[in-house]
Amino acid sequence: MAYLDNAATTRVCDEAARAAVEMMQTCYGNPSSLHRLGAASARRLAEAREAVAQLLGCQPECVYFTSGGSEANNLAIFGAAEAKKRRADEIVTTTAEHSSVGAAVKHLEDQGWKVTRIHPDQSGQIDPEAVAQAVTGRTALVSMMMVNNETGALFPVEEAAALIRRKNPETLIHWDGVQAFGKLPLKAARMEVDLLSVSGHKIQGPKGSGALYVRRGVRVLPLIYGGGQERGIRSGTEGLPALVAMGAACQRLQGQLPALWKRTAGLRDSLLERLEGIPQVRVNSPADASPYILNFSVPGYRSENMLHFLESRGVFVSSGSACSKGAVSPVLTSMGLPPAVVDSALRVSLIYDTQPEDLDQLLSALQEGIATVAHR
Amino acid sequence: MAYLDNAATTRVCDEAARAAVEMMQTCYGNPSSLHRLGAASARRLAEAREAVAQLLGCQPECVYFTSGGSEANNLAIFGAAEAKKRRADEIVTTTAEHSSVGAAVKHLEDQGWKVTRIHPDQSGQIDPEAVAQAVTGRTALVSMMMVNNETGALFPVEEAAALIRRKNPETLIHWDGVQAFGKLPLKAARMEVDLLSVSGHKIQGPKGSGALYVRRGVRVLPLIYGGGQERGIRSGTEGLPALVAMGAACQRLQGQLPALWKRTAGLRDSLLERLEGIPQVRVNSPADASPYILNFSVPGYRSENMLHFLESRGVFVSSGSACSKGAVSPVLTSMGLPPAVVDSALRVSLIYDTQPEDLDQLLSALQEGIATVAHR
Repeated sequence: MAYLDNAATTRVCDEAARAAVEMMQTCYGNPSSLHRLGAASARRLAEAREAVAQLLGCQPECVYFTSGGSEANNLAIFGAAEAKKRRADEIVTTTAEHSSVGAAVKHLEDQGWKVTRIHPDQSGQIDPEAVAQAVTGRTALVSMMMVNNETGALFPVEEAAALIRRKNPETLIHWDGVQAFGKLPLKAARMEVDLLSVSGHKIQGPKGSGALYVRRGVRVLPLIYGGGQERGIRSGTEGLPALVAMGAACQRLQGQLPALWKRTAGLRDSLLERLEGIPQVRVNSPADASPYILNFSVPGYRSENMLHFLESRGVFVSSGSACSKGAVSPVLTSMGLPPAVVDSALRVSLIYDTQPEDLDQLLSALQEGIATVAHR
Repeated sequence: MAYLDNAATTRVCDEAARAAVEMMQTCYGNPSSLHRLGAASARRLAEAREAVAQLLGCQPECVYFTSGGSEANNLAIFGAAEAKKRRADEIVTTTAEHSSVGAAVKHLEDQGWKVTRIHPDQSGQIDPEAVAQAVTGRTALVSMMMVNNETGALFPVEEAAALIRRKNPETLIHWDGVQAFGKLPLKAARMEVDLLSVSGHKIQGPKGSGALYVRRGVRVLPLIYGGGQERGIRSGTEGLPALVAMGAACQRLQGQLPALWKRTAGLRDSLLERLEGIPQVRVNSPADASPYILNFSVPGYRSENMLHFLESRGVFVSSGSACSKGAVSPVLTSMGLPPAVVDSALRVSLIYDTQPEDLDQLLSALQEGIATVAHR
């Protein structure tokens, strides 16, 4: 079996699974309890926060745990909008965002916020000047992703941020870092970003873990009120098994990101070269995309049919984002690609332990599919 | 060691821990993925939903998974308020609620909602007539708990609901069932309740799991927007390891609740009898409380000092709720108990595998503590 749908979710690594079991059955106190079982859990949570902070490149005090990337994105957007609403009523974003950003921004738009959405060009790239140009004195927040979840395109978040700061230094800058975290080395504390969302289950941690980086001095209002956990920004007994496991998954990656990036780029390049040798294939990812995601189309072969054929050969890929189950890719559509390309798109996504044999298996299944799947 | 802080959190049972590991490392697909690894995960999530629904006494379609009880309470309160805000602007609750209800309601009050809070009497009980009397034609929501988390008092939720329905049939009724679920047999579908919050980690499931029951036809707005998971009410990739583990914890309790209640009542009664034989002890829980929680005071011995003494003897209890870390108990205070009683309160909380020896250990440590801890 070749699991190549790692941008949708990953298998949890052994270190993370062991940590989760320990937090479920051995170190099971409530971090808010006053006794030493509580203190032991609080300590493990602090260590996990430290490990996440290391990969984010920030102080642990700036890391707020959430139940996942979607919650982190919603907390960033609603929390910032709520904190800024007395003096601002505009938001700038792109049409290529994940649904947890897109739908949260849409909800604010329905409540009267003015939203400007920048389209990617045909190569899947966003123009940082266009983002900054949309910012006005009334812009509360700019939200854009670091790595596109469908194409792997690296969005010019740093260039955009520098321009946004010049245009309106009060505007908060949010990056959805879900597909960047644990892959690109980050230095959040040194970058022009106020809010940065990450997820555990894209990097071999468990589903149900995530975090929001909040720059020191930046105020966001909570989504969930209660006992005041996570310094009041996210109440509720912390989901320790998943969060400490996320910490273990991060720990394992410390100092490894450049080498893993290089290794993955090698695999991706060899896959790309062989795909380009298949005349029916059209690659949709930009050349300088993240090596962890490769999007291509086989026009005339509907994504879903090809996906199921590949699956019958033990190869698991996705058609666009898992989160838009069955729907037409909003990202490829907003890139202006022709319907035949959009309707036949496949996303292959790699992870740290992807093997060359997985890609061999994909290629031979794909060629078999092109020869046998009903063409339309 | 005698762990008697099960109302704060429990050790995860083997069945649940095994299910979590399976979802992390074997059945790790994203339920939204179109391939069979996704479908397998979706199936396991459906089974977990079924198991939770069984304990709630409702159809699985009425169960919406969340990251825990606090999120479920916030979703119920904000989701109902948001859905009703065009025609209503009042909320009725009690002063004895968990902080995740108390703080959410307070946030709405700060935004202009009128809030009426009913106090418990000296026995810790709430008068259902007083709750219903506070309901007007403008009341969007009544939120009250089923079992008080500090005293174990069974609040008269059904009596109150019947009176509320007569007063204003449009008012939504929310019960915080976190300390009732998995202990009291529930029939949500047959009871006069619209929204009912539950948690996994109080019943030997993992922290980071919970659910909200939403009666068919009742509309609540989401807290978290995105990919439309949980039928649009709670977006974000589902936290499968914790949620499927919660399902396993529920499965294990099916058909067992009356026998477990009786077993626990036997343990509690014997503890109570022996506590009443200690002249310095004053019991704060009502006689007809849940057997899973017993609150008592040793006036003159500060809770924290006694808690740490007991801990030194391997006995883990709590001073009030874990969620109000170190703060004075709002529940005992609002019961009108004297400061010497409130300041010396201890909460002992039992679970399915609590042994008579655990209670023996508590009693002998307590007697030793009374003899040796500095008295003030």
